[in-house]
Amino acid sequence: MTDTIDRTILGGPVAPRSSVLRPLDPSELRIVGGFWGEQQELNATAIIGHCLTWMERIGWIGNFDRAAEGTVAEHHDGIEFVDSEVYKLLEAMAWELGRSGDPALEATYLRLVDRVAGAQEADGYLHTSFGRPGQRPRYSDLEWGHELYCFGHLFQAAVARHRTGHADTLVEVARRLADHVYVEFGPDGRDAVCGHPEVETALMELGRALDEQRYRELARILIERRGRRRLKTTLFQGSEYFLDDVPVRDAEVLRGHAVRAMYLAAGATDVAAEFGDAELLDALRTQWDNTVARRTYLTGGIGSHHQNEEFGSDFELPADRAYAETCAAIGSVMFSWRLLLQTGEAKYADLIERTLLNAVLVSPREDGRAFYYANTLHQRSQGSIPAEDEVSERAESSMRAPWFEVSCCPTNVARTLASAASYIATATDDGIQLHQFADAEIETTVASGTVRIRVESGGYPYAGTPSVSVRSDGEVEVSIRIPAWAEGARARFGEEVVPIVDGYARIRASFAAGDRILLELPMEPRLTYPDARIDALRGTVAVERGPLVLCAESADLPAGVDVDRISIDPSQPPQGTADGASAVIAIAEPQESSWPYGERPAGGSATAATTATVPLIPYHRWANRGPSTMRVFLPIAAR
Amino acid sequence: MTDTIDRTILGGPVAPRSSVLRPLDPSELRIVGGFWGEQQELNATAIIGHCLTWMERIGWIGNFDRAAEGTVAEHHDGIEFVDSEVYKLLEAMAWELGRSGDPALEATYLRLVDRVAGAQEADGYLHTSFGRPGQRPRYSDLEWGHELYCFGHLFQAAVARHRTGHADTLVEVARRLADHVYVEFGPDGRDAVCGHPEVETALMELGRALDEQRYRELARILIERRGRRRLKTTLFQGSEYFLDDVPVRDAEVLRGHAVRAMYLAAGATDVAAEFGDAELLDALRTQWDNTVARRTYLTGGIGSHHQNEEFGSDFELPADRAYAETCAAIGSVMFSWRLLLQTGEAKYADLIERTLLNAVLVSPREDGRAFYYANTLHQRSQGSIPAEDEVSERAESSMRAPWFEVSCCPTNVARTLASAASYIATATDDGIQLHQFADAEIETTVASGTVRIRVESGGYPYAGTPSVSVRSDGEVEVSIRIPAWAEGARARFGEEVVPIVDGYARIRASFAAGDRILLELPMEPRLTYPDARIDALRGTVAVERGPLVLCAESADLPAGVDVDRISIDPSQPPQGTADGASAVIAIAEPQESSWPYGERPAGGSATAATTATVPLIPYHRWANRGPSTMRVFLPIAAR
Repeated sequence: MTDTIDRTILGGPVAPRSSVLRPLDPSELRIVGGFWGEQQELNATAIIGHCLTWMERIGWIGNFDRAAEGTVAEHHDGIEFVDSEVYKLLEAMAWELGRSGDPALEATYLRLVDRVAGAQEADGYLHTSFGRPGQRPRYSDLEWGHELYCFGHLFQAAVARHRTGHADTLVEVARRLADHVYVEFGPDGRDAVCGHPEVETALMELGRALDEQRYRELARILIERRGRRRLKTTLFQGSEYFLDDVPVRDAEVLRGHAVRAMYLAAGATDVAAEFGDAELLDALRTQWDNTVARRTYLTGGIGSHHQNEEFGSDFELPADRAYAETCAAIGSVMFSWRLLLQTGEAKYADLIERTLLNAVLVSPREDGRAFYYANTLHQRSQGSIPAEDEVSERAESSMRAPWFEVSCCPTNVARTLASAASYIATATDDGIQLHQFADAEIETTVASGTVRIRVESGGYPYAGTPSVSVRSDGEVEVSIRIPAWAEGARARFGEEVVPIVDGYARIRASFAAGDRILLELPMEPRLTYPDARIDALRGTVAVERGPLVLCAESADLPAGVDVDRISIDPSQPPQGTADGASAVIAIAEPQESSWPYGERPAGGSATAATTATVPLIPYHRWANRGPSTMRVFLPIAAR
Repeated sequence: MTDTIDRTILGGPVAPRSSVLRPLDPSELRIVGGFWGEQQELNATAIIGHCLTWMERIGWIGNFDRAAEGTVAEHHDGIEFVDSEVYKLLEAMAWELGRSGDPALEATYLRLVDRVAGAQEADGYLHTSFGRPGQRPRYSDLEWGHELYCFGHLFQAAVARHRTGHADTLVEVARRLADHVYVEFGPDGRDAVCGHPEVETALMELGRALDEQRYRELARILIERRGRRRLKTTLFQGSEYFLDDVPVRDAEVLRGHAVRAMYLAAGATDVAAEFGDAELLDALRTQWDNTVARRTYLTGGIGSHHQNEEFGSDFELPADRAYAETCAAIGSVMFSWRLLLQTGEAKYADLIERTLLNAVLVSPREDGRAFYYANTLHQRSQGSIPAEDEVSERAESSMRAPWFEVSCCPTNVARTLASAASYIATATDDGIQLHQFADAEIETTVASGTVRIRVESGGYPYAGTPSVSVRSDGEVEVSIRIPAWAEGARARFGEEVVPIVDGYARIRASFAAGDRILLELPMEPRLTYPDARIDALRGTVAVERGPLVLCAESADLPAGVDVDRISIDPSQPPQGTADGASAVIAIAEPQESSWPYGERPAGGSATAATTATVPLIPYHRWANRGPSTMRVFLPIAAR
């Protein structure tokens, strides 16, 4: 099937039936160049193909062929949830096809869908690891089997296909699978949830896309079932790990496994929006507030424990053991975006920008062929170098790896970049809201008629002079986010200073050809101090510039100097450069001691000897020049 | 059998056939009171009984009965290595019997030995989790099965029995088992090692006790086989975890799982000593040096990663995520003790003291009925309270737990306290070396005849005036360790100042009745700063007093103040009290912010408002007054 579908039910990855802000769909907003255009181009020309090549090579796609042939029980490649990586790649391809319409990609996509579809069983069930003779029975390991988790990613891939104008094979595969899941886990099915949330937000969106109330209701049921401590715990993974310790509506803060936490929060926000559940929405907003205030890295990254990929306790945010998994950051963007749609509050868009630019974009190497899984804020040693042709563990090397045994992050990056246009702007009945600065063309309809907007990023995020050209049939309010960091920012419309209200420069007008709003955002490097309760960062300061967190990388230090010997004097603040900063650092002599505690501070930055002026580069671009050491938070020099 | 054995082959837990210092055996040195006497009394009256009661109650001892009856395959309690806990308890009982000779304990011990012996199979194999129909085959899971690990603990228990004068049932059980292991893993057996080192040091000592060359040779073979990356790795546990990444003699530093690392290093030191392998001994000394200089907490605790209970990288020593497992600290004492015997260098005795007093003795609650498994140096929140009648996970609560699912630590504490006398002193042909200050009576023979020593600790570790009374038949050199922290310490013998050479006050004389060496150790509280390369501790200072690390516990702070609001001004140093210190601390107002990074330092200790004078207590005594927060390293107040 290649049916195209009714234009009116399109939307982005999220299209709530009720929200303060309405998301734009791929036909209404296109990224046309600049920084985000480059990211999407990298995704189209490198990342998507890289993911496809790897998953063919190591048999994860072949699992579907063997499932169709009946041989997968004898030979299954990868752990039990690798189906989900194929689905995230299909989602990425679908969004990318919506962007480019590339016929070669379309053919590749359709062939891959056919192979997936071939593995679906007569009753709709589709999973290559369970249920056949010689495999474990279906739903026999809800804690760790990731069956519903995989289904969720298939549903999201189907939503992407549907929202880009096609109701073809994958959409029908998803429908049959969702019908099966409703029977198995719905009101008359088993009273259980999946160990890894994901299907909730996916069912909701599939239910919205296909206008199927049962799927939306099942999403609600699965959210409500969570938090009853029914999932079996292990020696190391308690109920908190699974977010099964407390009902979603009773929790105060995100906790446990960070990706699980974020996917669950995203699904719960969908449920709150769909069913007008104000109590649940309030609980989620509180959880977001407390998580951001106490459990989030400067980059927007989350999850400070390697152990269980979990959140730490409040203010436990060590730079050198930051896990900050790429997928958790993507989950954070998903959660924040849903809250932004429901509230219109700028803080959610602020965190999305911080997280995308710093915690997500740090993952892919600049050639798009290697990725970070965890994203430390402090690399102490260079570590071993991942081989370019081998599957890596979630390494602690300073270098990105081409693929992982659990390889959730590369495909998650791919689908996020392919759908990046979704997060740029929203509309209301009488207004347009620009949340992110990307070179983009927008055309949509509000009450007063058509609005056409051209955003020129002006070199953002490196430069601070975006401009927004608007033409409208009638009066419309254009709201442009002024980032929270941009103290002293100005927005002008001709001679007029545009007032900044609640984080947005807001101007209401009938815009004519040539009308243009000009922004001036302060791009001087800023010293940023950690809260004193973050013990691991005491006595340090970070440098930010615009929306970018900067870092010191050993590649930029004098030869032979690693980041364990540098410090910075805040009275000599860094100066701005084209894309980062230039800082005077003090360099200590290397020291040895037989016991690392003594009568006075010693070692490392404690005994600065010489100074040097060095570049600080955007954190998301570190480790593109070979093995190195790096730090975001710089020790403050002893005086 | 209750045969007693030839007096001449006694010894402590370690009795190398060649060493610089000769360990004393239980008949030569008795702890007679004071601080260490109290620890041994607590062990005798509470800890040993507590361990016995728990292991009866939860079926870990019953496993042996069921193995004898043939029903254990249907019903086995606990994970696969719980046999080892019973063996460590037997070891504790044996040393305790050597100390007290208590007939009731003897009867209990013999009954328990009989139950263990009943589970031994005809070919000598003895393990309740493997090898029977319905169980996994013997040696089918060398990585995780812990079979040889358990055997090792049985061997050490047998050595304890033998060294306290009995060659009875357990010794014969051990001999049959060791013979079996030699066949299975010896030169003609399988070319493999156990995932968890322990059997190496145990085989060596059993071979020494029973004068059995094959066991000693097998220890050597197992050490040499390690480091070939033959143990199967998992997604999370690589070769480093198992210490299988590099041959022992090629490693530069301890790494991987901290307990595994220490047990392996202890066994390797035994092998180096036994076979005169100077290269191996040098490698181990280098590993000790590098581990102490870069990977050890102020308490002597080791292992900074909760993930895998592993060492972190150099200088990665966060107080708030210190894992510092009790068993790893005990393993460190075992390793240091073996190096002390081989070298006579004071630094090993210094670390033993630090580790015993701070990293081991922090584990048991003051009533001996609850334990820490991990020993954090900074408790941020009170956490949940472990139930007194339930098996706990390795909790992150501020409170000790009565028992754990993996309960290696309580029995390890029990056997260490029961054998504590072993670590106090050594002898050479013409001298006696006192390494630890415990109230003790020593009687041993050197070349010039009998030496009798009475050590009075004089309230040590709280007071600094130990004294040593000596009587000798002829000339003897008495060496008394002057701890590295004791700058300005003095030792006097009558009017004579005893010179301090290489960390020991050393005096050679023929000592007559009434001769007494008096020490004066400085007991003023000391400020101790971390090396600047320990990022997690930057801007903090600890307080030590004598050999004790002190801490601030919320129970001692003004009502409602937790340790996240306190700081200390080093220009107002703490004053000594009877057992700790009194410090002026600054207390900040509680602060809230929506984002924990900003233009200036904020939150926690950053904005001190009031001051208070509060006690700092010995770290090992914290959390004996209900749930609390605690920190060893105190933020330095902003000025």
